[in-house]
Amino acid sequence: MTTFKELESAEAGTTQPLAQVLDMLPYNDQGLIAAVAQDVNTRQVLMMAWMDRTAIERTLAEGYACYYSRSRNTYWRKGETSGHLQKLVELRFDCDGDAILLVVEQTGPACHTNRDSCFYLLVDGDCIRVTEDPG
Amino acid sequence: MTTFKELESAEAGTTQPLAQVLDMLPYNDQGLIAAVAQDVNTRQVLMMAWMDRTAIERTLAEGYACYYSRSRNTYWRKGETSGHLQKLVELRFDCDGDAILLVVEQTGPACHTNRDSCFYLLVDGDCIRVTEDPG
Repeated sequence: MTTFKELESAEAGTTQPLAQVLDMLPYNDQGLIAAVAQDVNTRQVLMMAWMDRTAIERTLAEGYACYYSRSRNTYWRKGETSGHLQKLVELRFDCDGDAILLVVEQTGPACHTNRDSCFYLLVDGDCIRVTEDPG
Repeated sequence: MTTFKELESAEAGTTQPLAQVLDMLPYNDQGLIAAVAQDVNTRQVLMMAWMDRTAIERTLAEGYACYYSRSRNTYWRKGETSGHLQKLVELRFDCDGDAILLVVEQTGPACHTNRDSCFYLLVDGDCIRVTEDPG
């Protein structure tokens, strides 16, 4: 099996079976990997959440982002109740496999506060400042 | 003290002392918060790493991204040896404070493999595919 270390020197176009990659992901002690979602159109970073192997497989099979909720201990298809779904465009792993980038078509706001992005708290000098009204 | 929960309904322009926010961040059991870096010019998501309170304070004071290395148990100013520094443009927290977004001016490639971004492993059907040659 090719390791992440070996893939570091691989040329563009090199492939490896996805199942092998899912086997060798460095899941944390809760079995999770950090996942970041980015809007394919605005290129805005929308949110960070967590995925386990099943959440990754569901996301790929269903074509919509599915995360694992640490607070509720359950799978959570983003937008399942709000309708603010994230249609998957690309799923990427980083060089050591401990982070996932989801490039998505975001329907509606990504944040549960109905702001476009969860990252609305900006450091401004010795304060943080809210940069967007809640929806 | 205003909590993240209370800030959810705050209008744009609302401020809160940074020191209070740093006190109430939900650091994990290693004292860390996940941090994502995005290139201010290309809008590409570059990498994910970890920061503790000191790394956040150093990043803000020095104006360059400083992470905490879990494998080496040490602070790590990104690019300190490679020269591939990340000049800070914006530092943002998400709605519940468990993720940081660094918008940066990236000098050179962000990845230690000399690729522009660490996210070069793309899921393509039942494989992953390397999308960029190493530098």
